[in-house]
Amino acid sequence: MTEFEQRRLSLAAALAGAKVNALLVSSPASVRYLTDYAGSNGLLLVTPEESHFFTDPRYAIEAAQKVTAKTHIAKKPLIEDVAALLKRKKLKKIGFEPAWINVADHQKLKESLGLGASLQPVSGLVESLRSIKSPGEVSKIRKSVQVNSEAYARTLRRVKPGLREQDVAAELDFQMRVLGAEKPAFDTIVAAGPRSASPHAHPSPHRLAGNELLLIDMGATLDGYTSDMTRVCYLGSPTRPIRQMYRAVLEAQLAALDTVRSEAPVAQVDLAARKVLKKHGLEDAFVHSTGHGLGLEIHEPPRIAKKEKVKLKAGMVITIEPGAYVDRQFGIRIEDTVLVTENGCQILTPTSKELVRL
Amino acid sequence: MTEFEQRRLSLAAALAGAKVNALLVSSPASVRYLTDYAGSNGLLLVTPEESHFFTDPRYAIEAAQKVTAKTHIAKKPLIEDVAALLKRKKLKKIGFEPAWINVADHQKLKESLGLGASLQPVSGLVESLRSIKSPGEVSKIRKSVQVNSEAYARTLRRVKPGLREQDVAAELDFQMRVLGAEKPAFDTIVAAGPRSASPHAHPSPHRLAGNELLLIDMGATLDGYTSDMTRVCYLGSPTRPIRQMYRAVLEAQLAALDTVRSEAPVAQVDLAARKVLKKHGLEDAFVHSTGHGLGLEIHEPPRIAKKEKVKLKAGMVITIEPGAYVDRQFGIRIEDTVLVTENGCQILTPTSKELVRL
Repeated sequence: MTEFEQRRLSLAAALAGAKVNALLVSSPASVRYLTDYAGSNGLLLVTPEESHFFTDPRYAIEAAQKVTAKTHIAKKPLIEDVAALLKRKKLKKIGFEPAWINVADHQKLKESLGLGASLQPVSGLVESLRSIKSPGEVSKIRKSVQVNSEAYARTLRRVKPGLREQDVAAELDFQMRVLGAEKPAFDTIVAAGPRSASPHAHPSPHRLAGNELLLIDMGATLDGYTSDMTRVCYLGSPTRPIRQMYRAVLEAQLAALDTVRSEAPVAQVDLAARKVLKKHGLEDAFVHSTGHGLGLEIHEPPRIAKKEKVKLKAGMVITIEPGAYVDRQFGIRIEDTVLVTENGCQILTPTSKELVRL
Repeated sequence: MTEFEQRRLSLAAALAGAKVNALLVSSPASVRYLTDYAGSNGLLLVTPEESHFFTDPRYAIEAAQKVTAKTHIAKKPLIEDVAALLKRKKLKKIGFEPAWINVADHQKLKESLGLGASLQPVSGLVESLRSIKSPGEVSKIRKSVQVNSEAYARTLRRVKPGLREQDVAAELDFQMRVLGAEKPAFDTIVAAGPRSASPHAHPSPHRLAGNELLLIDMGATLDGYTSDMTRVCYLGSPTRPIRQMYRAVLEAQLAALDTVRSEAPVAQVDLAARKVLKKHGLEDAFVHSTGHGLGLEIHEPPRIAKKEKVKLKAGMVITIEPGAYVDRQFGIRIEDTVLVTENGCQILTPTSKELVRL
């Protein structure tokens, strides 16, 4: 039995608990998790007895090579074939993923149901299976993290004043691709000087100058699995305010890492970072949450945030990434990808965390 | 008045026709079209009198710099702030985009509506405005197309046996970035030999050999606007079946281009390509539609397909990309980005269409 068949069995076993006879999986990452299909147009219907995979003719070859579920190649929008099958199979309580189906498709499904059948929202069922990574998945994430850090190291050796932010980003992405990544896990962030104060800055034509801070936030997707890292370096000799804020953010990051272990409430991890930044008067400068799970997607549950109620579990892979941002001046964020273990965590990101001077 | 304010006015003027007092715009590309906000977490509520933009603190700086609509920085999920505003403003008939809102968010909105208020699906309203490109937009698409073709030309000079598909893809993406693109408009396809028979192949570690066909499908995103091109070349001297199929696909592409003009039914454009392939016995080998609109998204209306009812309009930018695929042997697709004009079209893609031998 393949790992994908095993996962579908685990999901099938969980259907009764969610009080449905079937689940329509529409999250692309969840479809991939359960079938190995990596394209952009696939749906999976899981019942206790069998699974049905739907895609279009462009993916017929890939599906035939990879997918062991019963495959339907649809000539119309996939949802119409799904609806026809639901009717034929006379399934009654059909679960769907409310965050992953749009109102239009939901409406089509609803209209074509047979008598006595109903659609039931089922949230987070596959995400919950996905949140605990298997050893095979951890090893894929390790590769992704390593390629990402190596691409960073190779690029850093070439960074010099005069390069544009977008040249640095292009080099980072090129290096990760040459090292085997399929693509960046998200739009690589390269932000120099005051632009680092935007947590999600796009690389611009701005040319690096001397005496400028450089924030790089990057991740690779390799074999489908993502990594995520942020580092800050400095072209020249960093000023005292930058060194002070860097130390504060690093202290916050280490404090948060210190709390990571199986059964730790995520809110407590977030609080650990927040407390340190507050001590340094930077509480209001930390405008996002402390981290997030990752895997087949770059953002997966759990969110490591103040108001979240969940606890960490061994086998989760998360980011720890506190930051502090001063509008029009600079921003600093330090981020590692880490594996939660029974007694603590393994920091998967191998890149060192001193404030590198270039 | 900025172009974004003008667009919001055009949309506001169309609300009455759609029988709503407001429209919640949730398509990220449509939000960008109407506000200039290019991040990943934004919503826009347009009423005849005013517009409200919602994002989170990570984008506060970008929003302040770019967005002229009234801006709300939400600390919770954006949809909750939208719901609160709808209630406060006592809006009654609130349009939403059914293809761009998931069932979970729709449910939240619905539950928090005031007495007498209702949600109305409104499809394709902003897409329809977006489908006719302004001269400024066409000029952005031209730049995107030119950068894309130049990146292709630079890369082709370096292609040689021994390189992996993924190296070629990395080089294509690197070159487009260095030339000013933000990123590839989609996952660049580099497929050699029999892998070209999958219309959506992922670049693999396969090393290019002599006497092998190479299919490249690539696009750039530049200043938000996309381009899309497919070319096929051959390492060595192409076999007769390849040359024959290449000529058939090129003939089909030229025939389709010939039919493009304002008021031409898209089904007729699709049919023109299909007829030629049928003549060559390749009807069943053409497994996708003939093209699609593009702009801020790589796939926008109209679809150039058999069963579509719409007509082309001057100012639309579309792809023309017939293909033929023989499983386990090879696939050929030829694709240009073209601007629809009153009397025909302008082929924006400058790359020549002979079967290049490397």
